Amino acid sequence: MQEISSTQNSLVKKIVQLQDKSRIRKKEGLFVVEGQREINLALQSNFVIDTILFDNSLISEETINNLTNKQATLIRVSKEVYQKIAYRSSTEGVIALVKTKNSSLDQLRFATNSPLILVAEAPEKPGNIGALLRTADAANADAFLIANPKTDLYNPNIIRSSVGCVFTNQVAVGSTKDIISFLQQYNINIYAATLQNSNHYHLEDYTDATAIVVGTEATGLSEEWRNAAKQNIIIPMQGAIDSMNVSVAAGILIFEAKRQRNFK
Amino acid sequence: MQEISSTQNSLVKKIVQLQDKSRIRKKEGLFVVEGQREINLALQSNFVIDTILFDNSLISEETINNLTNKQATLIRVSKEVYQKIAYRSSTEGVIALVKTKNSSLDQLRFATNSPLILVAEAPEKPGNIGALLRTADAANADAFLIANPKTDLYNPNIIRSSVGCVFTNQVAVGSTKDIISFLQQYNINIYAATLQNSNHYHLEDYTDATAIVVGTEATGLSEEWRNAAKQNIIIPMQGAIDSMNVSVAAGILIFEAKRQRNFK
Repeated sequence: MQEISSTQNSLVKKIVQLQDKSRIRKKEGLFVVEGQREINLALQSNFVIDTILFDNSLISEETINNLTNKQATLIRVSKEVYQKIAYRSSTEGVIALVKTKNSSLDQLRFATNSPLILVAEAPEKPGNIGALLRTADAANADAFLIANPKTDLYNPNIIRSSVGCVFTNQVAVGSTKDIISFLQQYNINIYAATLQNSNHYHLEDYTDATAIVVGTEATGLSEEWRNAAKQNIIIPMQGAIDSMNVSVAAGILIFEAKRQRNFK
Repeated sequence: MQEISSTQNSLVKKIVQLQDKSRIRKKEGLFVVEGQREINLALQSNFVIDTILFDNSLISEETINNLTNKQATLIRVSKEVYQKIAYRSSTEGVIALVKTKNSSLDQLRFATNSPLILVAEAPEKPGNIGALLRTADAANADAFLIANPKTDLYNPNIIRSSVGCVFTNQVAVGSTKDIISFLQQYNINIYAATLQNSNHYHLEDYTDATAIVVGTEATGLSEEWRNAAKQNIIIPMQGAIDSMNVSVAAGILIFEAKRQRNFK
């Protein structure tokens, strides 16, 4: 088994870059997953582990062997190296380099004729994307789509804040234009959460194939969505400020659809 | 008008402490609010401004005079001092020391016989508390109560993440025991979001006086709430992970109540 004890090792430097830079993740087709639970979730969702690095003083080789696919390279690292590559201040002792998946729209498959899809346009904060992924998982949404992404999906803050839901959801990324075309091609009704020309969300019927689309808190949805929508929808707000976290708004909308579908 | 140009000034040091330490906020009965919009919201909600500090190179004296109550002391500060006391990396140029309000349960007043109340037990992350406050404002909830608080309400991260909703909501803080007694005294039905012995949330009726109670993501609600509840409720989850951000869960529950009340 390979061992790395120097923090100056080139792989160590690459891992640090993979955590910091979207560009390097794209170039290498790899991203970093930390901790047993998260690595297991990636495996269960058919992600391919490329390399596992572990600190023997924190986790046993036996545990590592149960945590990976056969193709993966196992590397024992020193405490010093592990501290350097660990993103969280955790003592889990294991980090995996995982191959990114193709997240194009043509990969999507639906097990039903009336899928329920959550779309977020240009979400910025990794914490919000993590919360959206958790909501999509909890609702068992048929897909979570990101339109005009501002960041790649494999940002370590997204992985962490999604508590693994970045693996369990069917996720695709594309331009707003391409996602609208895709939804139209599959006859999926678009409900755009926006202020303009909108009906109260709870008065619409989401039992047919439905995509619920939310924009950013700052600028809302782009005009393309408003024009493509079967109906623009709004959550009636009655407070003094009338501002809601985007993941809260998405949760309210997607679970209203679930309620109408009797959670089936 | 007073002027402060030294970062070693005792008030400057006190302001830094007021931002850092809950204990100092309690002792002084003061907290820090930054920026025109937020200070205006505090004023509109009858908070009393004790002191306004401003950087004349960023904001005019005329603007400051429109931004405060008569009792407030106005202090012109140097650029250096403003940089030191500014919590956000903003260029707003104005900071207020505001008097904390009594947030005891006996201050609460309801304009209706069937109030809708959001209760969060022991919420930890300021960002979640901010999102809960935004949701309570958007729903025009009659009160937002924090049971067994882990932090004081005037933590600068709560003020910031609430985008001012810490001012616009009727907020009270108390022990779980005292809040349960309070709700029972006013015949407010308690719906506790918990896994144990729970019904699906959308099958309950929230049109009478209702308190929706959410716990922490890690440990859920304490047993006291489960015992005091008219009904324990659960959001049916059907994903692989079934974990939801606490503020998303609260949003789904409180807006189901709003829906049943026809947003009245």
